[in-house]
Amino acid sequence: MCRWIAYSGTPILLSQVLFQPEHSLIDQSLHSRMGVETTNGDGFGIGWYTPDTDTPAVLRDVGPAWNNRNLLEVSHHVRSGLFFAHIRASTGTAVQQTNCHPFRSGRWMWMHNGAISEFHRLRRDLALAVDPALYPDIEGSTDSELMFFLALTFGLREDPPGAVARMAGLIEKAGHAHGVPNPLQMTIAVADGDRVWTFRYSSEGRSRSLFYSTRVDTLRALHPDAAFLRDISEETRLVVSEPLGTLPGVWNEVPESSYGIVQPGGDVLRTFRPALQGDPA
Amino acid sequence: MCRWIAYSGTPILLSQVLFQPEHSLIDQSLHSRMGVETTNGDGFGIGWYTPDTDTPAVLRDVGPAWNNRNLLEVSHHVRSGLFFAHIRASTGTAVQQTNCHPFRSGRWMWMHNGAISEFHRLRRDLALAVDPALYPDIEGSTDSELMFFLALTFGLREDPPGAVARMAGLIEKAGHAHGVPNPLQMTIAVADGDRVWTFRYSSEGRSRSLFYSTRVDTLRALHPDAAFLRDISEETRLVVSEPLGTLPGVWNEVPESSYGIVQPGGDVLRTFRPALQGDPA
Amino acid sequence: MCRWIAYSGTPILLSQVLFQPEHSLIDQSLHSRMGVETTNGDGFGIGWYTPDTDTPAVLRDVGPAWNNRNLLEVSHHVRSGLFFAHIRASTGTAVQQTNCHPFRSGRWMWMHNGAISEFHRLRRDLALAVDPALYPDIEGSTDSELMFFLALTFGLREDPPGAVARMAGLIEKAGHAHGVPNPLQMTIAVADGDRVWTFRYSSEGRSRSLFYSTRVDTLRALHPDAAFLRDISEETRLVVSEPLGTLPGVWNEVPESSYGIVQPGGDVLRTFRPALQGDPA
Amino acid sequence: MCRWIAYSGTPILLSQVLFQPEHSLIDQSLHSRMGVETTNGDGFGIGWYTPDTDTPAVLRDVGPAWNNRNLLEVSHHVRSGLFFAHIRASTGTAVQQTNCHPFRSGRWMWMHNGAISEFHRLRRDLALAVDPALYPDIEGSTDSELMFFLALTFGLREDPPGAVARMAGLIEKAGHAHGVPNPLQMTIAVADGDRVWTFRYSSEGRSRSLFYSTRVDTLRALHPDAAFLRDISEETRLVVSEPLGTLPGVWNEVPESSYGIVQPGGDVLRTFRPALQGDPA
Repeated sequence: MCRWIAYSGTPILLSQVLFQPEHSLIDQSLHSRMGVETTNGDGFGIGWYTPDTDTPAVLRDVGPAWNNRNLLEVSHHVRSGLFFAHIRASTGTAVQQTNCHPFRSGRWMWMHNGAISEFHRLRRDLALAVDPALYPDIEGSTDSELMFFLALTFGLREDPPGAVARMAGLIEKAGHAHGVPNPLQMTIAVADGDRVWTFRYSSEGRSRSLFYSTRVDTLRALHPDAAFLRDISEETRLVVSEPLGTLPGVWNEVPESSYGIVQPGGDVLRTFRPALQGDPA
Repeated sequence: MCRWIAYSGTPILLSQVLFQPEHSLIDQSLHSRMGVETTNGDGFGIGWYTPDTDTPAVLRDVGPAWNNRNLLEVSHHVRSGLFFAHIRASTGTAVQQTNCHPFRSGRWMWMHNGAISEFHRLRRDLALAVDPALYPDIEGSTDSELMFFLALTFGLREDPPGAVARMAGLIEKAGHAHGVPNPLQMTIAVADGDRVWTFRYSSEGRSRSLFYSTRVDTLRALHPDAAFLRDISEETRLVVSEPLGTLPGVWNEVPESSYGIVQPGGDVLRTFRPALQGDPA
Repeated sequence: MCRWIAYSGTPILLSQVLFQPEHSLIDQSLHSRMGVETTNGDGFGIGWYTPDTDTPAVLRDVGPAWNNRNLLEVSHHVRSGLFFAHIRASTGTAVQQTNCHPFRSGRWMWMHNGAISEFHRLRRDLALAVDPALYPDIEGSTDSELMFFLALTFGLREDPPGAVARMAGLIEKAGHAHGVPNPLQMTIAVADGDRVWTFRYSSEGRSRSLFYSTRVDTLRALHPDAAFLRDISEETRLVVSEPLGTLPGVWNEVPESSYGIVQPGGDVLRTFRPALQGDPA
Repeated sequence: MCRWIAYSGTPILLSQVLFQPEHSLIDQSLHSRMGVETTNGDGFGIGWYTPDTDTPAVLRDVGPAWNNRNLLEVSHHVRSGLFFAHIRASTGTAVQQTNCHPFRSGRWMWMHNGAISEFHRLRRDLALAVDPALYPDIEGSTDSELMFFLALTFGLREDPPGAVARMAGLIEKAGHAHGVPNPLQMTIAVADGDRVWTFRYSSEGRSRSLFYSTRVDTLRALHPDAAFLRDISEETRLVVSEPLGTLPGVWNEVPESSYGIVQPGGDVLRTFRPALQGDPA
C-alpha cells in the first residue's frame, strides 16, 4: 500500500507540505500510522503544474523518499498551486520508475493507494479492456497504472467520476468472474491542472483512510494565531491519506464510497458507486 | 540495439570473458564497432548457472556496465561453465531492471539483440498471443521480453528451434497484417543449463552481426603458444555479437538465417526459417 | 545505526541466513526490534569469501535490502563459508555505495554499527591520523570507513585486537580534546578470510546489542529434531546485531567491552579496552 | 573528463539549451566531439537559480544524462535565468551523486572539467589545505569538489578570480613538490546567482576547449531571421565546453589562460595566472 497527498490552492514551495509538517509525507515514508505497511520505501513521485507549460512535471525515483536529495532539492525550490506526492510500498510488483505514481497522460495525473485483489489473475482481462490505441503506452506492471489506462479508456478526460465508476465496475465484474470476493480497494486522486478529483471506495466497504482539510476561513476562526493560514487563499485544500498533524479541526474523514471535487468556485462531495459500461450515467 | 555474449565450457571466472579480452563486452559498452549504436549504456545483465542450484542467477542493473562495481565484483569472484552477458542500448523503452536481459523462467534464460519494427503498433496483438497463464508474469515493456514469452507459449521448453520459429512466424504475420515491411530483426541466445541455442535472423535478410568461436583443438594447432587455450576443454564455445579480439582464426560469422546448438557431444549449425503455428514441424 | 551479521562455518547459500530465518536480516531492514532505528533502508552490502579468489567479493547498493533483486539473486545462488551482511540506517551522511558496508582492503573486510559522536567536528583530526599512504583510498564520507582506515593504520593486518584498541583510543582522545563526552559507540566485525573478530564497545558502557550463537554441539543436544543443525559443522558460528529467531538457547549476548575471535580450533572471548598508540600491548 | 554549459540571461526553460540544440549537452553525453572521452555517461547535474529562494536548486544523478527521465522532466518544466549543467566522464573515482557537479555552498555553485594530475598522490596535501571549518562538509572523492573547497578556503566569496588563482597556485605547488610535471588542467564555472565566472587554464598551456557565445545584438545582425534571438535579452550569454551547433559567428574560443565574468552591465575577459597565497593581488 501507499500514502499520498494532493494540494490545490495558493502556490507554495512543495517542501511546505512535503517536509515541514510534524507528520509530513516524508515522515510517513518511515512511520506511517494508518497505512497497511508502516514503511513506504519502494519509490516515490511528485507531480506539479506550472503556469507556463501544458503538462505537469513528474519526478519519480525508486529509492525511499526520506533519503532522496533530488526530492529535497526540487521540493525546496519549486512552487506550485496544484501538486501531487506519493510514496510507495510495493505489494510485490517491481520497484521501478514506471511503477511509481503519479502517472501522467497529457495534462492528466493519477495516483492511487490500494490494490486490485489477486491482480495476478485479473491482469490480462483488464489489460484487454484498455483501448488498443492506449495499450502500447503501458510502461509498468502495477494495478494502479492499469486502472489509469482503464479510466482513460472509459472517458476520464470528459467525465472523471463516470470514467472511474466504469473502471471500478469493470474491475469488480472481472474479479467476480474469477471468484475474487472483494476485488477492489482504492483511494485515488486525479487532476487536469484546474481541478482535482479524489475517490474513496472498496468492494468490501472498508476503504483505506482518506482525509480532507477544513475550509481555510473556518480554520482561521479556529486558529487565529496560525500565521500559515493568513498566507493562503480561502480555496486552498489538501486531501491526504493520513493527517499531517494534530491541530484540532483541520482534518475530516472522506466518507466511505464517495468522491470529491476540489475546484475554483466551490468544492463538492458526492456518493461514489461503481458502474457497468452500459449503465445509464 | 545491444551486444551479448554466451559462454559454454570449462568453468571460469566471468571476468576472464567479460573484462580481460582486448575488445571485451565491457569495452563494447563504450565503443561497439559493429553495433547500430556505439554506446550500449542503458543497463546490463549477466546470468550464470552453478552446479548446486536449480535456476540460473541473474544480476541486472540500469546503469552502464563499464562503471558498475557490482558487475566487476561478481565477475571477478563467480565461476561458471555456462553464462550469458548482455549490454543494452534502449530503442526508446524505459531503462529499468525488468527491461534488462537476460530474462529467466525456471531453468531457462533468454537474451536478444535486435528489434520488432514498429513494436508500438504490434505490441498488443503480440501480448494477446501469450499464454494467459504466462501473461501475468510479464514485468517489463520490451519487445525482447515479449518474444521470450511468445517462445515459452509456443513450446520453448520442449522444442527451442521450433518454438523460436513459431515466435518469428507470428511476429512476421502480425507485422504484415499491420503493413510493416520487415517486422523482425534478431539475434537470440537461449539456454536451459545444459545447452545453448543461438539464432540469427531478420525479415529483410540482413541480420545483426553474430560470431562463434572456432573449435578449441583447431585453435590450439593455430596458436600453440596461447596459454589460455591449454586450460579450457575442447568443448568450450563462445557465441558473441562481435569478436572479442583480433587473433586470427578465432571468430566465424554465424550464417544468415541459421541457428546453432552448443551442447555436450558436438555442436550443430542449421538453417532457420520462421514457421506458422499450424505448420508441420 | 545499522544491523549486521557475520557467518563462519559450513559453506551454505547466503539466503539460508539472510532470508530464511523468521527474523532475518532482511526482516530487520523493515522491522528492527533492537536497533536505534526500526527501518534500515539506506543501503546494504554483503561480502563473501570463496576458495578460489584472493579477495572477498563485495556487493553493495544504495536502496533498501528488502526490495533488492540482485541481493536476492546472489544470496540464493552463492555459497560461502565466511560472509558478512550489513543493512544501513544513515545518520546523515550520503546514501551512496562507498558509504555502504562492508569495506574491503585486500583480503580484509570490515563492518560497523554505531557512530562517532559529533563526527562532523572530529572528522578532520581523525582523517589526518590515517597513514598518508592509505589516505587517498578513502572513498566515502562515513565514520565507519574512517574507523577502518584508522585500524589499518594501526596494524590491523598484524594485530586486529590491538589495532582496534588503538583506533578506539585515538577516537576517544580526539573526542575528549573537542569536549565530546562519549565519543565512541561501536559493534564491529572484521575478517581476513580465515578468522572473524567481533567487538562490542562504547565510551559510555552502554553498547549497541550484539549476540553470538551457541556451540553447535550444545544446540544439537537442546534441539535434537532441528534438521538444519545436522547439516552444519560444529565450528559454525553466527554473530549478529539481533537474534534471527526465538529458538531457546541459541543466542547469547556478547558482554559489554569485549571482543571475540571466531576461528578454526576454538573461539575465544576477551575483554576489550581502548589503548593509546604508545601503550604497551 | 566532462562537458558543461553555463547560461545567463533571459529566463528560459532549461530544455531550450539542454535538449533542443543540434549538438546539445545531451547529445554530447553520447557523442562528444572535443572531449577527451566521446562518452560522458558517469552521472550528470544541473543547478538553477530561481527568484524566490536563497540557494540554487541542484539535481544530480549517477546514470547517463541521455536516458534520465527526471532530467527531461525538470528541464522541460523549470525556467531559469542562470543555470549550470554538467555531464561527467569519471577518470576513476566512484560514480556517486556526491561526485557529480555542480557542487554548492550557500548561494555558490561550482563545476569543473579537467583533472589534477596524479590526484591520488596529491589528495591528502590538498585536503589538509582546506579550512578546517569547511573540511567536514567534503562529501565526495573528486579533485573537482576539493578544488571548490580550496577556492572557498582562499576567499571565493569575496574575490572569485583571486581565490581561483590561489587554488591553482597551491595545486601547482603541491604537484611540483611531488614531482608532477603539469599538475593542473581545468575549465571552471562558478556563480553566485548574479554573476558567472569562467576560467580556462592548464599548467601545460594546452587547456580543454571552452567557448562563449557572441553578443546577442551582433548575432541579430548576422542572423536577422533567427526567431530565437528576438526573444532573448542582449545580455544573454552561454559559456560551453563545446559549441551547441554550427551557426556561423555564434561561438568564440575562450583564450588560453584567461577568465571571464558574465554580469549585468557588461561582461569582461581577462588573463588568468595562478598565484601563491602570499602573492600581492
